[in-house]
Amino acid sequence: MNIDNIVSPTLILDKKKCLNNIRLMSEKAKKHKLIFRPHFKTHQSRTIGKWYKKSGVNKITVSSLHMAEYFANDDWKDITVAFPVNIREIDTINSLAEEIQLNLTIENTESVAILNKKLKFEVGFFIKIDTGYKRTGISFDIFLTIDKILKLASESNKLVFKGFLSHAGNTYKAKNTSEIIEIHKDSLYKLSLLRKQYIEKYPDLLMSTGDTPSCSIADNFEGIDEIRPGNFVFYDLMQYQLGSCNLEQIATIMACPVVSKHSERKEIIIHGGGVHFSKELINIGNKNIYGKLVHFNKEGWTEADQDQYLVKLSQEHGTLQVSDELFDIIEIGELIGIIPVHSCLTANLMKEYLSTDDDVIDHLSGNNI
Amino acid sequence: MNIDNIVSPTLILDKKKCLNNIRLMSEKAKKHKLIFRPHFKTHQSRTIGKWYKKSGVNKITVSSLHMAEYFANDDWKDITVAFPVNIREIDTINSLAEEIQLNLTIENTESVAILNKKLKFEVGFFIKIDTGYKRTGISFDIFLTIDKILKLASESNKLVFKGFLSHAGNTYKAKNTSEIIEIHKDSLYKLSLLRKQYIEKYPDLLMSTGDTPSCSIADNFEGIDEIRPGNFVFYDLMQYQLGSCNLEQIATIMACPVVSKHSERKEIIIHGGGVHFSKELINIGNKNIYGKLVHFNKEGWTEADQDQYLVKLSQEHGTLQVSDELFDIIEIGELIGIIPVHSCLTANLMKEYLSTDDDVIDHLSGNNI
Repeated sequence: MNIDNIVSPTLILDKKKCLNNIRLMSEKAKKHKLIFRPHFKTHQSRTIGKWYKKSGVNKITVSSLHMAEYFANDDWKDITVAFPVNIREIDTINSLAEEIQLNLTIENTESVAILNKKLKFEVGFFIKIDTGYKRTGISFDIFLTIDKILKLASESNKLVFKGFLSHAGNTYKAKNTSEIIEIHKDSLYKLSLLRKQYIEKYPDLLMSTGDTPSCSIADNFEGIDEIRPGNFVFYDLMQYQLGSCNLEQIATIMACPVVSKHSERKEIIIHGGGVHFSKELINIGNKNIYGKLVHFNKEGWTEADQDQYLVKLSQEHGTLQVSDELFDIIEIGELIGIIPVHSCLTANLMKEYLSTDDDVIDHLSGNNI
Repeated sequence: MNIDNIVSPTLILDKKKCLNNIRLMSEKAKKHKLIFRPHFKTHQSRTIGKWYKKSGVNKITVSSLHMAEYFANDDWKDITVAFPVNIREIDTINSLAEEIQLNLTIENTESVAILNKKLKFEVGFFIKIDTGYKRTGISFDIFLTIDKILKLASESNKLVFKGFLSHAGNTYKAKNTSEIIEIHKDSLYKLSLLRKQYIEKYPDLLMSTGDTPSCSIADNFEGIDEIRPGNFVFYDLMQYQLGSCNLEQIATIMACPVVSKHSERKEIIIHGGGVHFSKELINIGNKNIYGKLVHFNKEGWTEADQDQYLVKLSQEHGTLQVSDELFDIIEIGELIGIIPVHSCLTANLMKEYLSTDDDVIDHLSGNNI
């Protein structure tokens, strides 16, 4: 790749690595006979969407109706919005439901009551189930609430029950891969109880799950019909720390110009701050870490010999703490590569990718007003 | 204002409060005979820029050349880029320098050497001084490095020395307003030593400083010629916590739809996450806080009776922890207001404002590739 023309913070995408990540997860889904409905909130790119389509994917997940519209307008016909339905957006729901197979996520009767009144076209719906993350969803064992939702929804001829949807986001707090496996197993067990309760009445019900750590690490998906991982398409430093991937699988890095060096602190100042990386951080050795240094090479980038981290971020500045040796080598005006902590948020800020083949790749941009 | 039409996360701007913030800071600058060169990285808006222009401002600060271009194209003729010069962007520097009074920030001889070779038009430059923040800049007492920069720059007929620029960003770590005043006083003292050293040789040199906490709280600017605060135009929860403003001065809030309620945890789930607020946080009572609840009224919003905070953020979800009383009142489908922790980063993500007078107000959007 030619980095000479890069003058300001730029998000670099290695297409080969990205395609490989897609291929591996597709194969895993196939092996376990799972519907593969990848989450597109990570890349938010029509181009990358096409790479998925080429690999056989025709059902996708998004996290907002805005994103659903963006991909529906690019010919995606089966979209699940894995976010509690926002009834203020009923007009968008109706216009999408007229065109595509739209699946909503429901976790309370209040939303169902409004949908019953205002839906003009058929939509599928999943009931959001909490298996321990405690962010959204009905606890897997509160059948009373689930029954209420199903009963109320059955009064509408527009709401078609599809199944149960969960997200074991608690894997992101795991200390190691065995803890991830434990959380995943626990989640499978809870979902199996739920399935047992409803499968007779709803023989076609789908059990949908799929955080990236579980989908990457686990090899048992018993009782699951569909997975929805998203981040694996790029991975990032957080996923590497969790054990979801190795460093070579990470498909996006930031390219940032070096603007200053401070020898007394062995700190390198780059153009690359919170408006580029986001302020997502991980903890390594009790330090806040915002990214990890890599070196550019002809094909893309390669890991640095030692661990060198981005340790501070303000709006436009990033501070990289490096070894004495590296401090002397890095030059002002040079371009350095940084693996971001959270690729979804970084991509969402950068709004565009430059591939290692020097192609510009799109990302959903703009706003909603 | 009419919030009925708001269906998804929206950044609301109270123009009156914003104009009042501009007026107060302008008056303070006038009172102390300071050049008022506000930082536009907070709002990144041509419309808000015009409000400044109307109040008499004709010199501005930005934090990237991209932003400098955006405002130069809107007829701003005197722009300081308060970020260590990025020599990879020499072409943009030259094209801007041809059109406007462009001032760069320099803190090393390496950049000067390149500028000497490649500058085609005259630019002003400030030497970045560190008075204790330890992010960028040359320590105020390292005259040797400053002299080297001045000597090398004097070999070019394109580089015009303007003065010294500092940013006491360490005020953001202050525990109370008296600590902010102490840091500000310390910074003034250090800058006065620097001024004494160079004023004879450079009688026109300007001392430029101005973080929002100091500019809001301090009332002594002895030895300073120019201030560059930015955030005060909106303020935010972080500035309120620091003591820079009262709650009524905060001019932007996020409007977010309520999508779910979890009674066992007294948690309200809103559409409004890291891609709307940013992941900037403050600490209140040992808890991570991402925003503070306010209530909408006819004119805009009003403070909630009790402190209710946004306590968790993921990509699209926000979790608000509320009192039993409020939990019962807030309804699914309702729109609630949240003061963001860091208005600059929130505005940078939202890319647009809706004013309480129902006008859509622009924000710099897009990317650089």
